[in-house]
Amino acid sequence: MRSSRELRPVCMEGDRLVILDQRFLPNEERYRALRRVEEVYDAIRTLAVRGAPAIGVAAAYGMWLAAATCFSEEQAAGVPFSGAAGARVREALSRAAEVLISARPTAVNLAWAVRRMEEKAGELLLLMVNEEGNEPRFLTALREEADAICREDEDSCRRMGEYGLSLLEPGMGILTHCNAGILATAGCGTALAPLHLGQERGYGFRIFADETRPLLQGARLTAWELMRAGADVTLICDNMAAQVMKSGRVDAVLVGCDRMAANGDGANKIGTAGLAVLAKEYGIPFYMFAPTSTIDLQTATGEDIVIEERDGEEIRSLWYEKPMAPEGVRLFDPAFDVTESRYLTAIVTERGIVRPPWKENLAKIMEEQLV
Amino acid sequence: MRSSRELRPVCMEGDRLVILDQRFLPNEERYRALRRVEEVYDAIRTLAVRGAPAIGVAAAYGMWLAAATCFSEEQAAGVPFSGAAGARVREALSRAAEVLISARPTAVNLAWAVRRMEEKAGELLLLMVNEEGNEPRFLTALREEADAICREDEDSCRRMGEYGLSLLEPGMGILTHCNAGILATAGCGTALAPLHLGQERGYGFRIFADETRPLLQGARLTAWELMRAGADVTLICDNMAAQVMKSGRVDAVLVGCDRMAANGDGANKIGTAGLAVLAKEYGIPFYMFAPTSTIDLQTATGEDIVIEERDGEEIRSLWYEKPMAPEGVRLFDPAFDVTESRYLTAIVTERGIVRPPWKENLAKIMEEQLV
Repeated sequence: MRSSRELRPVCMEGDRLVILDQRFLPNEERYRALRRVEEVYDAIRTLAVRGAPAIGVAAAYGMWLAAATCFSEEQAAGVPFSGAAGARVREALSRAAEVLISARPTAVNLAWAVRRMEEKAGELLLLMVNEEGNEPRFLTALREEADAICREDEDSCRRMGEYGLSLLEPGMGILTHCNAGILATAGCGTALAPLHLGQERGYGFRIFADETRPLLQGARLTAWELMRAGADVTLICDNMAAQVMKSGRVDAVLVGCDRMAANGDGANKIGTAGLAVLAKEYGIPFYMFAPTSTIDLQTATGEDIVIEERDGEEIRSLWYEKPMAPEGVRLFDPAFDVTESRYLTAIVTERGIVRPPWKENLAKIMEEQLV
Repeated sequence: MRSSRELRPVCMEGDRLVILDQRFLPNEERYRALRRVEEVYDAIRTLAVRGAPAIGVAAAYGMWLAAATCFSEEQAAGVPFSGAAGARVREALSRAAEVLISARPTAVNLAWAVRRMEEKAGELLLLMVNEEGNEPRFLTALREEADAICREDEDSCRRMGEYGLSLLEPGMGILTHCNAGILATAGCGTALAPLHLGQERGYGFRIFADETRPLLQGARLTAWELMRAGADVTLICDNMAAQVMKSGRVDAVLVGCDRMAANGDGANKIGTAGLAVLAKEYGIPFYMFAPTSTIDLQTATGEDIVIEERDGEEIRSLWYEKPMAPEGVRLFDPAFDVTESRYLTAIVTERGIVRPPWKENLAKIMEEQLV
């Protein structure tokens, strides 16, 4: 067991990628050391690693593992670093990229991180090819690129945490949904980032976590992560949110975002849109945490975002001792819903807080360079 | 397996009370024959029988079983029906009443049905005492009282079904929550009554059932009951209601009621209040089905209704193969919430449909005699 500050779902230790296998949470904190890109593919595909930023970081290190494996095989075969070896590495990375991206084809961060690693490797090989003995320099430089991807995400989380915290007051009651925390990123999370920062600074938040059916990320991951950090967290069923809000226990709702349209409509885990309606009804501020990597100005409104529908068997039987609904019952299982921007109080990005008018201000923040 | 029309959670067969043990649904349709009042107590206490009206009917027959047991013991001992025997029956029924009421102390219907049976027994004994050979007449007359309680509930369900159906159009999409159906009553249900009637009459409703965490009455009971009736039912998680409504699939929301205040505020299964807010937001009619036995004019508003909070361990571990939240996590587990009457489109009772102004019209319908 690591300390709360050290909790990392994805972390390099020497030449191994150590992941926290989230399928066993909250009952078991089981870490696995991955040495080959095929193992990283498997960890992403089976949701052992989840959360778009965390997946991107895992895939970046997966690319490095693919290169390192290739070199160690070359060395084992006594082949010097040469043009031919460089071509073999390039080929190995190209294969690794296809494999990794196929693990979660819709995850934007995954493809982005993999392509960035592939491009970096190409640049490095051009510089270093035919310089004998340069394997270590190549691997070190490629590792630095993966480390940069990791560090940038960590930094982005910290910034969202600071901006988010500036919207909150000590002692507030906070409701959150799904898991947009440490377990989903390489840092302190997106929507959970201000709660972790607040915990470090003695804000004394009273946090409510929705269990988030059907995959129970709130119960299994958010409650676990926040308890581990020593925070005051209460678990509720999704259908209890109205009662918790009505009874005055909630001062702000904080949620993540999977994809945001140019007008501020944001897709997030199923259940988010309903919470936004309730928050508006009860006069509670509703903040959506959207790293700029999730903001897609090419998508005009939420209506253009296609909602992924899963097959629903997870509603009927996943986690349960026996199936909890009749065999053959029709199931409707949308994985996400879209919260229209009229329900949002503010959008928190790593570049700052965005307020209405959404379209103008989102365009502006996307043009700005991160200082 | 009985046919759909014959499904009854509580039903006398000869001198045995046959109950459908709902704890095994939807995986097993297991019936149990109860011969002694202690077995009826146990069935109510363990939720094998549930739903206020169904519990009331079970308890009424439980009182009859207590009397029948007492007489058969007297006969076995060769004691003639006499004043002393009458006193022993009265005493046995008084003990049975206390036992039954203690099974679910807060269920109003239960105490009401038990007291009604006790009073009827008292009247009959006064008439018949010292008339030798009158045991069969006494038991027949007492059985008729229990049958009347059962028949009145059946009739009340049918009436609510007709009134409810008058509010709906063929082909409509209907969302319902928890289980207010056949399995909760001696008839075709309260909120589900119009859906069963509509099914018989070819209305072709497209019904959505919320799974209703944490006890899963929607998934386990409503989906099962409606599928068994051949209805078109789709199961969703509670947090998917907003998405189902937004996408135009829902034309009306039908829910039950556990207790209604004089101003029309109604307590019902946790999650109902949130659905009402969503229905209002999306312009969907919201109907609450409240038999007059649940309308309490002595309670001024919903604020006077105390919400039962359960201990929450059922959120963490019930039904699951392993606990799905960290050990020791704080849990908030209100069993009900109150839907303020401003969210209601109409209240459906067995005496007719009530519309605003709520206070005046509820008072009026409570004064009317059922024709």
